[in-house]
Amino acid sequence: MTSVIRIGFTGAVGSYSEAAVRALYAGHAAFKGCALETVSFETDHQLFEAVRSQKVDQAITPIENSLSGTLHEILSALIDTRDVPRLCIAAEFIFHEPHQLLGLPGATTSGARQVVSHDHVLAQCDEYLDAVLPKHNASGSGCQRVMVSSTGEAAELVRALNDKSVLCVAGHTAAAIYGLVPVAVDTDEQRAQQTRIETHADSSFTRFWLLAREDLVAPVERHQEPKTSLGLRTQNRPGALHRILSCFALRNINVYKIESRPQPRSILRPHAAWSYDMYIDFEGAPSVDASVARALDNVREFSTEVVVLGSYPRYVFDEQLW
Amino acid sequence: MTSVIRIGFTGAVGSYSEAAVRALYAGHAAFKGCALETVSFETDHQLFEAVRSQKVDQAITPIENSLSGTLHEILSALIDTRDVPRLCIAAEFIFHEPHQLLGLPGATTSGARQVVSHDHVLAQCDEYLDAVLPKHNASGSGCQRVMVSSTGEAAELVRALNDKSVLCVAGHTAAAIYGLVPVAVDTDEQRAQQTRIETHADSSFTRFWLLAREDLVAPVERHQEPKTSLGLRTQNRPGALHRILSCFALRNINVYKIESRPQPRSILRPHAAWSYDMYIDFEGAPSVDASVARALDNVREFSTEVVVLGSYPRYVFDEQLW
Repeated sequence: MTSVIRIGFTGAVGSYSEAAVRALYAGHAAFKGCALETVSFETDHQLFEAVRSQKVDQAITPIENSLSGTLHEILSALIDTRDVPRLCIAAEFIFHEPHQLLGLPGATTSGARQVVSHDHVLAQCDEYLDAVLPKHNASGSGCQRVMVSSTGEAAELVRALNDKSVLCVAGHTAAAIYGLVPVAVDTDEQRAQQTRIETHADSSFTRFWLLAREDLVAPVERHQEPKTSLGLRTQNRPGALHRILSCFALRNINVYKIESRPQPRSILRPHAAWSYDMYIDFEGAPSVDASVARALDNVREFSTEVVVLGSYPRYVFDEQLW
Repeated sequence: MTSVIRIGFTGAVGSYSEAAVRALYAGHAAFKGCALETVSFETDHQLFEAVRSQKVDQAITPIENSLSGTLHEILSALIDTRDVPRLCIAAEFIFHEPHQLLGLPGATTSGARQVVSHDHVLAQCDEYLDAVLPKHNASGSGCQRVMVSSTGEAAELVRALNDKSVLCVAGHTAAAIYGLVPVAVDTDEQRAQQTRIETHADSSFTRFWLLAREDLVAPVERHQEPKTSLGLRTQNRPGALHRILSCFALRNINVYKIESRPQPRSILRPHAAWSYDMYIDFEGAPSVDASVARALDNVREFSTEVVVLGSYPRYVFDEQLW
């Protein structure tokens, strides 16, 4: 008997989130024997609610891109939301599907009126798009950049409109699903870049998180070499962050990522110091390593507030397995 | 005799960047006696080149928003670019102009086909826009979100198209320049939000930087209570970041902001650890405080690469003076 796991994502079928979770389940032995069913939601809020109410088992969501940075709205939803049961991180997956400029068969860049994608994806491709599809300007000529919620939705829209003057940036999964093709470009110089969006957008990797209900997620195990993520607040004074990092450094625990987040409260008083909360990723998990548990205890001692986002295994995309 | 200072910005007249620099020069005694001339550029690259070649004296650019986070493309351009003369930070300014939903006189939300703005601004207003202007969907109904380079450009476009079905999100400066008005909404519930974009977008504050050629910027002075910003790279091992922060903590120097940035080189090897560079803001300046100079010396000792982005005074927007 094969068990079925239902994973929700935001946007339409064929989005990078859906492609990522399919790659994760196809490529990693840990997920063998699970039949995967993906379920589309319109908004992140609806997606997270569906996990809380067990309409789906887990959610997949992008959290950081190597070019365009952290997706702050997701991080804030996880750290600042007090809704229970809480969601926590069940796994991390680093995934890369090359961006493609797609359209209906016969579409060309010179005939393009609009190019549609996720806002982070449009930002990642800004230089390339400036070169092949100059922006809409005040005279009304040029090509508009249109934001939608996911790359899947962008591809779905091009198919639904059935309009060759509307292009999108999405991956080959979306191209296959919606019958879109890489768009022919009109100059020799552009032709060299025909199927893949060049400049630096090819080095765009995205960290995705699988999110699950805190009370339903399986505890991480030592052999999974877990990573733990925290949101925390300290007093805003010299040395506060140094004390937090001491908790890890004194125990030889590697800190992977640290990021300041402007405090929601302080932004209402712009004349006061612009204060920050912290987001931190470090190696290990308190449940499997006593020194990590002690480090976390000390972090709580030196912070005014700590939210543990989860301890979870990490997976990377292996093109050979896909 | 009044000296004239020329400040470049990206986008069209009336953008938040231009409004910010006008507020800075109007509201702060340090700039009295300078006649301000603002100059528009199409791209950040052109803007920075204009400062290098002295076509303008300085550039103003947004660097961080309290809701949508760091503008990574600007930070990367400053840290990773080896073009000389280098640009450095001459001042920081925290500014807030409330977002408004604008259109031609007589425009309504029910007749709206497109809403145009900067991608960060559209992201900050996402919830509000979902409520009053549901997104374009695959059936072709709804309102498109269109990205342009600045809020000024968005307002200019609405004016140039002279089309009541195209709205924009921009500030009152842009509204005044392009003859746009707050858009009437069509339900009682929406009417309560009529002129200002509510939800949390009203608590959106943006940090702007004035950038100048390193060899032409005036040294910061002690009474300006300066802040210093660094980009740096350390060895990826436990305690590396802790040692960096020790340099400040042992001397009682406050660290304001710290942020990991995925390393450009490491993203080409996704199977290796996802490695990060660091961006750090701290109080003081090495040129006016010996203990800050010693801290910076030690940071260099414990890093593989350090880029000093500048030591600079900080200003905040005072609505009373504007």
